[in-house]
Amino acid sequence: MKHFVSMKNLSEHEILQLIKLSDEISNTGIPPFSNQLFAANLFFEPSTRTKMSFVVAERKLGMEVLDFNSDVSSVKKGESIYDTAKTFESIGASLLVVRHPEDNLVQRLAEHINIPIVNAGDGTGEHPTQSLLDLVTIYQEYRKFKGLKVAIVGDIKHSRVARSNAYALTTLGAEVYLSSMPEWQDNNLPFPYIGIDEAVEQCDVVMLLRIQHERHQNHTIMSADQYLENYGLTKDRENRMKSDAIILHPAPVNRGVEIDDSLVECGRSRIFKQMTNGVSARMAVMYQLLEKGGITHANNFNKRSAVISR
Amino acid sequence: MKHFVSMKNLSEHEILQLIKLSDEISNTGIPPFSNQLFAANLFFEPSTRTKMSFVVAERKLGMEVLDFNSDVSSVKKGESIYDTAKTFESIGASLLVVRHPEDNLVQRLAEHINIPIVNAGDGTGEHPTQSLLDLVTIYQEYRKFKGLKVAIVGDIKHSRVARSNAYALTTLGAEVYLSSMPEWQDNNLPFPYIGIDEAVEQCDVVMLLRIQHERHQNHTIMSADQYLENYGLTKDRENRMKSDAIILHPAPVNRGVEIDDSLVECGRSRIFKQMTNGVSARMAVMYQLLEKGGITHANNFNKRSAVISR
Amino acid sequence: MKHFVSMKNLSEHEILQLIKLSDEISNTGIPPFSNQLFAANLFFEPSTRTKMSFVVAERKLGMEVLDFNSDVSSVKKGESIYDTAKTFESIGASLLVVRHPEDNLVQRLAEHINIPIVNAGDGTGEHPTQSLLDLVTIYQEYRKFKGLKVAIVGDIKHSRVARSNAYALTTLGAEVYLSSMPEWQDNNLPFPYIGIDEAVEQCDVVMLLRIQHERHQNHTIMSADQYLENYGLTKDRENRMKSDAIILHPAPVNRGVEIDDSLVECGRSRIFKQMTNGVSARMAVMYQLLEKGGITHANNFNKRSAVISR
Repeated sequence: MKHFVSMKNLSEHEILQLIKLSDEISNTGIPPFSNQLFAANLFFEPSTRTKMSFVVAERKLGMEVLDFNSDVSSVKKGESIYDTAKTFESIGASLLVVRHPEDNLVQRLAEHINIPIVNAGDGTGEHPTQSLLDLVTIYQEYRKFKGLKVAIVGDIKHSRVARSNAYALTTLGAEVYLSSMPEWQDNNLPFPYIGIDEAVEQCDVVMLLRIQHERHQNHTIMSADQYLENYGLTKDRENRMKSDAIILHPAPVNRGVEIDDSLVECGRSRIFKQMTNGVSARMAVMYQLLEKGGITHANNFNKRSAVISR
Repeated sequence: MKHFVSMKNLSEHEILQLIKLSDEISNTGIPPFSNQLFAANLFFEPSTRTKMSFVVAERKLGMEVLDFNSDVSSVKKGESIYDTAKTFESIGASLLVVRHPEDNLVQRLAEHINIPIVNAGDGTGEHPTQSLLDLVTIYQEYRKFKGLKVAIVGDIKHSRVARSNAYALTTLGAEVYLSSMPEWQDNNLPFPYIGIDEAVEQCDVVMLLRIQHERHQNHTIMSADQYLENYGLTKDRENRMKSDAIILHPAPVNRGVEIDDSLVECGRSRIFKQMTNGVSARMAVMYQLLEKGGITHANNFNKRSAVISR
Repeated sequence: MKHFVSMKNLSEHEILQLIKLSDEISNTGIPPFSNQLFAANLFFEPSTRTKMSFVVAERKLGMEVLDFNSDVSSVKKGESIYDTAKTFESIGASLLVVRHPEDNLVQRLAEHINIPIVNAGDGTGEHPTQSLLDLVTIYQEYRKFKGLKVAIVGDIKHSRVARSNAYALTTLGAEVYLSSMPEWQDNNLPFPYIGIDEAVEQCDVVMLLRIQHERHQNHTIMSADQYLENYGLTKDRENRMKSDAIILHPAPVNRGVEIDDSLVECGRSRIFKQMTNGVSARMAVMYQLLEKGGITHANNFNKRSAVISR
């Protein structure tokens, strides 16, 4: 694994390895890198939550953080993302974390840059570290994927998480179902659609998606109450979930829209645990990319005090 | 002390303990925390000066800094401040520093969040770390509060510092006087108003407030020169101050408005010393909150090299 | 050297010392400072590239980074740059890095501030660390300056790099030629103008300048293609360069304007190497300023773990 830009092309073995490393890190931690490495976070789209999670992960690995923010327009005027990335490589970055509003741009960039790139979300394409943290959260619950039924519920069409997760879960042996109002279905995806009531009653994992207000400003959708009643997770539906089924949501939650306000921190909700897992999942990805040969950190221990610049 | 959101509810003992710890830190320093802790600075209102002071304090304590900026509007659209705070708790923050334009919001937030919260200014409410640094500066001068006369001069009505200071100084045994033009008096406060001339002649501490242009754009106030002449600290008034009396100002100073330009760095001015004390005061607050049992740092010494992530 | 604000007043010895220290750092590194020092980056004009390079340099020296961004307008409203600088000094900064759109402002500021100031670009004045990194790149190629012919090509009038470089190269014994379309010539500079064809055929270093779109919005200039053909570095001109001559450009490059797209990463281009050298050049400057007596870091080695705050 030279870059981490997509879940789609990873083998079951590769995904499981990352899940297990994430889980190990969340249980016992991992020693920071012994030498001074720089991570550059290039966000061409606002994202506090994902970026903060990466920053925590980077610092826990002992990495220095270079924070680059830009709206696309100013970059278009100035220089290509290739030149920006190349600049960070030249000034000493060991790894790039890139979020960009254009589909597939991160993947194409990775083909031309020598240092590892982590995709932190590309347009409506993929968001593989979000997917990984979802998988880790499921794994911590069930310790398996085969035989699990997972419903992905909401705005399938515009969600990069839905895509990453549906493919990865299938690779891992789970059964994936989609649930969405007709306007938000993506019929190119090879997964069956079911109604929300069927989803909550039959699935072990109900994975809600965030309604991306910012992505469909031209649509006049129904009211929040109507959406919740027709397509969201109401208290009544939560009551009909399987006894040990869990609720996931990538957050930020639109309380009272995708999910009833009172369910956000209910017993089955793993929403804040997902955030906690996001840090260890990102640590696992960056650790794997930078240690190359895999988990071989035995000798790094306690060497931090001997850091020499450059 | 679980949170540090207000000076109003602290006892004389608690305030003195913080003042003495701040003073000790400014004299001899304090060893950084032995484990890797994250401070999240959540500023919902711009504030370079206060934020930078917190960053220095956090880094001197060896803490990692998570920097979150947001104007209120975008947060209102997106998610509640509760969910934002909960997110930072979930990704590993050990402490939140919060500034928010809404009165009492930080106090209410503190009731629902498990990790310590430091109020970095809420609306026209309180600004307790600014108050603490003022108190430390007075303490370094007089080593006592009882019997001291302190004048708080300027826009009392819109100042969160005035409020925090007036209550804390009274708790500590000082006599507090307010001086303000009529429009800026707050008659709910239980402190006597005196004229500026009386204030400078009789008080040991003349504490000027900043005119918050941004807080009363609808008022047409008099010119800067007129304000200085009628209500501010002119060179003539400085001449009439008691021989060892001192001048405080929370900065940034409007030179030539609240105070004559040439007095900003005069012999009695402690304005830049206040800034220096701001760092140690904030270190003291965060140290106290995170070490819980108080000043017990003997064993932390020199353990930094053994930091293990998570 | 108390501040580093200009190349113009430095002696040959002083410049060579900085070049050699930069070169040494880029080869073998340098141990970080043994105590906790804070660098404050005060950018009153946007500059991702230069600022990121300073951040990497500061972190490699083990310094803490305080990041201050401001557009001039808000600072004009609020407080003077002097008060801002004094504030950072008061809260513990050991060094200021300042970029400002006003000519000579950084130089004037340096006269009033006690801690070292590094000029990161002032208006159309100077940009001495950019100049130093250019000189280091030339030195790594030729190990001398005497006898070298250097052409500086492009918008001479608005370039702060041109000015810094022309003076420093002359001090070092190189022959400096300028090449520019008539509108962009600065006839106050004591250097001869030559045509672009003569420049590429006769010089050992062809130093291209960036067209600063933002600095002459009122001009209607020719098309990009026309500019490249008449005044830029085309593939044909690159063919006619001396066998070991090199190409420099401060970046970001306007590909296809100052230089043909395909030449940016060609064999003679040192454009990305310049960026790499920028980090070690900035480390050298800050090291020299803070170690005062020059290169005496023998005892700092491995002391990092004993850092005590304050």
